[in-house]
Amino acid sequence: MSYSIEEVARALGARAFGATEIAVDGVAEPADAGPADLALAMKPDYAEGLAKGRARAAVVWDGADWQAMGLEAALVAPRPRYVMSGLTKLLDPGQGWGGGIHPSAVIDPEAELAPDVAVGPLAVICGGARIGAGSVIGPQAFVGTDAVLGEGALLREGVRIGARVRIGARFIAQPGCVVGGDGFSYVTPETSAVEQGRATLGDIDGAQAQSWTRIHSLGGVTIGDDVELGANCTIDRGTIRDTAVGDGTKIDNLVMIGHNVIIGRDCLLCGLVGIAGSTRIGNNVVLAGKTGVSDNIFIGDNVITGGGTIVLSNIPAGRMMLGYPAMKMETTVEVFKGFRRLKRLFEDVSGLKKTVTDLSQKS
Amino acid sequence: MSYSIEEVARALGARAFGATEIAVDGVAEPADAGPADLALAMKPDYAEGLAKGRARAAVVWDGADWQAMGLEAALVAPRPRYVMSGLTKLLDPGQGWGGGIHPSAVIDPEAELAPDVAVGPLAVICGGARIGAGSVIGPQAFVGTDAVLGEGALLREGVRIGARVRIGARFIAQPGCVVGGDGFSYVTPETSAVEQGRATLGDIDGAQAQSWTRIHSLGGVTIGDDVELGANCTIDRGTIRDTAVGDGTKIDNLVMIGHNVIIGRDCLLCGLVGIAGSTRIGNNVVLAGKTGVSDNIFIGDNVITGGGTIVLSNIPAGRMMLGYPAMKMETTVEVFKGFRRLKRLFEDVSGLKKTVTDLSQKS
Amino acid sequence: MSYSIEEVARALGARAFGATEIAVDGVAEPADAGPADLALAMKPDYAEGLAKGRARAAVVWDGADWQAMGLEAALVAPRPRYVMSGLTKLLDPGQGWGGGIHPSAVIDPEAELAPDVAVGPLAVICGGARIGAGSVIGPQAFVGTDAVLGEGALLREGVRIGARVRIGARFIAQPGCVVGGDGFSYVTPETSAVEQGRATLGDIDGAQAQSWTRIHSLGGVTIGDDVELGANCTIDRGTIRDTAVGDGTKIDNLVMIGHNVIIGRDCLLCGLVGIAGSTRIGNNVVLAGKTGVSDNIFIGDNVITGGGTIVLSNIPAGRMMLGYPAMKMETTVEVFKGFRRLKRLFEDVSGLKKTVTDLSQKS
Repeated sequence: MSYSIEEVARALGARAFGATEIAVDGVAEPADAGPADLALAMKPDYAEGLAKGRARAAVVWDGADWQAMGLEAALVAPRPRYVMSGLTKLLDPGQGWGGGIHPSAVIDPEAELAPDVAVGPLAVICGGARIGAGSVIGPQAFVGTDAVLGEGALLREGVRIGARVRIGARFIAQPGCVVGGDGFSYVTPETSAVEQGRATLGDIDGAQAQSWTRIHSLGGVTIGDDVELGANCTIDRGTIRDTAVGDGTKIDNLVMIGHNVIIGRDCLLCGLVGIAGSTRIGNNVVLAGKTGVSDNIFIGDNVITGGGTIVLSNIPAGRMMLGYPAMKMETTVEVFKGFRRLKRLFEDVSGLKKTVTDLSQKS
Repeated sequence: MSYSIEEVARALGARAFGATEIAVDGVAEPADAGPADLALAMKPDYAEGLAKGRARAAVVWDGADWQAMGLEAALVAPRPRYVMSGLTKLLDPGQGWGGGIHPSAVIDPEAELAPDVAVGPLAVICGGARIGAGSVIGPQAFVGTDAVLGEGALLREGVRIGARVRIGARFIAQPGCVVGGDGFSYVTPETSAVEQGRATLGDIDGAQAQSWTRIHSLGGVTIGDDVELGANCTIDRGTIRDTAVGDGTKIDNLVMIGHNVIIGRDCLLCGLVGIAGSTRIGNNVVLAGKTGVSDNIFIGDNVITGGGTIVLSNIPAGRMMLGYPAMKMETTVEVFKGFRRLKRLFEDVSGLKKTVTDLSQKS
Repeated sequence: MSYSIEEVARALGARAFGATEIAVDGVAEPADAGPADLALAMKPDYAEGLAKGRARAAVVWDGADWQAMGLEAALVAPRPRYVMSGLTKLLDPGQGWGGGIHPSAVIDPEAELAPDVAVGPLAVICGGARIGAGSVIGPQAFVGTDAVLGEGALLREGVRIGARVRIGARFIAQPGCVVGGDGFSYVTPETSAVEQGRATLGDIDGAQAQSWTRIHSLGGVTIGDDVELGANCTIDRGTIRDTAVGDGTKIDNLVMIGHNVIIGRDCLLCGLVGIAGSTRIGNNVVLAGKTGVSDNIFIGDNVITGGGTIVLSNIPAGRMMLGYPAMKMETTVEVFKGFRRLKRLFEDVSGLKKTVTDLSQKS
């Protein structure tokens, strides 16, 4: 698919200059750009690469002297990072599948698919599933019994949506992600060592061998509109009520969302984040990669964590957190500085003790 | 499926009161309950919601005045958390598939399936596999060459069981989990930088570029009875002998069990736990979410870790551990408190040094 | 498949002694060995088990008195750990599938497969895909549009290779791994709270609710020769240019490689490692289990991290690192020692303050 610079400008709400009839069919970094690529030279640093590449047109910063850079056409957009969104959407070649229902797909006659739904090879759609207009169910994907997908869903290859999961519009799921596994919930006939340990924080003396009995997950998963899920991430069903993910929330690869968790709107959960059962996360929360959150706690709106943060207790709204255990970012930054001087601190205190002992004896 | 309160009571070994002929087909939190739901009001706090919902019957605490709560029938069970297990089992609607062998499944003629085994659409069962009575092999699941599954197995959609894996009775595997990937085991022709580094704990001067040669995994995986595996978790094959998981152990989503690892009975391994190669874990061990365990170490019976614990060395039986590095929970709790006061400590020591220097000069 | 001791010796470049015509078809630990197993007794400790087992032949250390151990034949190899590589390769029975193209596989007529490529049941190969000689595409695996696999690839069951991914020779991918999911890249119309927070490290006052707009991934993934990927690991596509993994690099289960990441040659990335977007990793880098690496940073050649390390900033070449935050291993080892004495340190300083106050008043 190829577009003129003028068409690109119109789609992005950007301004176009020069030979706006030039056609482009991809984007590239300046040094790698061929003549049919739109180069990304939104900052003077990036523009240096233009001489090495062969771009005829580029996205440049406001006020750039694009002609002096050897370009024949240029686009200027107000917020360069934001323009990437429109540009990449326009020029995304997609996965190359989709369109029609592949004869190898196994679709239960009781499933309801909007007339234009595409289903890839070897996908399975169970009875009672309802799939909205314009959705694409990828190769080898699975949609369970009575599951509901809103309009415009895209399930990449091998995605698994379990029974009774309900998902809003414009859902995107990367390969291998799983929605609707059973929750990890077990109980012992007697009070378990974990329950005891939580109560006392002490070691368990003479803990009895006990075996775990499963609590089945009767709840489902409810997912809002415009949610995206990363490759091989997992979201478990609730025990009684549904696990829930709010509108606009984006979840990265290998993230684990436990049973009964409730996540608000417009959150970002980065790679390898784990959220244990029954925890509630507010709106606009950003959890950096490898953040872990304990069960049965609460994280307020607009909280941001740094990489590797382990959250063991509630966080009020608006906090930036870092560390293990999670503390205010400025506190953890001080602690991290302290680590580097800790050996010296021990030596100083040891020295002081000697000096003070001497002084005491003298006085 | 619907049950009278009397039937539910009998199944749970609970006592029933009132109009025990009332039928229920689900459970719900008190405020969400409809007239066909059994409300869960095991604590006075929960019972408040009954007024908002429409439940006619509820599970209540011993001694509760259920009639005053507006109920027509009530169940009383000795350990409320435990009763959840029986209740949810009774009322679990399941995944809606199962029953018969789907014609799209690919089953090698050399596989041996008990007569009542169900196989979902597009599942693959290889030659020499043996699958026990009452098992359900889900849609798009895979059972490898010579793999053995005991009676009553349930493989959810897309589960992968590799060649020669042996699994006991009543196995449950959530979507996408993988048993029997190859171990992560490589060797260099000369002593590698990792081997050197482990020996010296120091930086590597002038490390030579070396490439890694694969050690193939010839062992399998042996899994006991009543084991459950979470979505997208992975258990690798052993190098020479089998990787092993004991009876009754439950493993959560995205857990990684390395090659040659031996895990005992009745353990709980929560989400995103990782156990590196050749480590042994005792019985009744509970590893909280995101716990990591080094290779070639030993964790004793009844050990419990807190969330995010990184275990770098052996742990004796019965310990509660927390932190990075893992220490006794009470020690780590003290260390965490110390973090919050660390900046102040540096200031105090700095102040003391000045005062002591002054005193020394005076004396 | 069975081999004489002489054949094994020749394949490994090892020396053989005794009745070298004895045939073996597997390897085993000494105590578990049957008469057709080659026992692994490379150290005197291991040799003790020989008496319990029934091995007739073993791999022994240089100078071992194998006849005194009751063996009929022995192999001696210079670097015992390295010999494991050749031995296990020789005796690997494989997965028991492969050979021909299964009629249930869905192969687009526009895909180009070398004549000897094997394709398992229910695999999908899309149009424009090119698959090199001797490759085995496992059951239920997926190869996307225009993806390229070099010669000798092995995709285990359920592996997903997305559109336009390019992979070199001798690639091995364990079950469920995903190459070519979309990158986790989003932008807000206005400067986001994350961008603000990174600038100020402070809490976000009155952060506005904003929703995230997707930046599509137009880049692919380029993978070199001799790369191996673990079960359920994920590698995302780049935004504009490709995410890249160098020759000889091995990646373990549940590892997450973000978009635009560049990884060098001969690295080892162990289980549950996560590398955030646009980070560059040098050659011969070893990241231990659960290591996390921030986005947009650089890790030099030959760096080694210990288990659970969280890397928040660049690391120069050759360093051994440990901890959260990552510091030189010796520094972190000191810090970990300090943790154990931290409570005492606070007490000491508190005691000193009292003593010094008393001394000051006296003087």
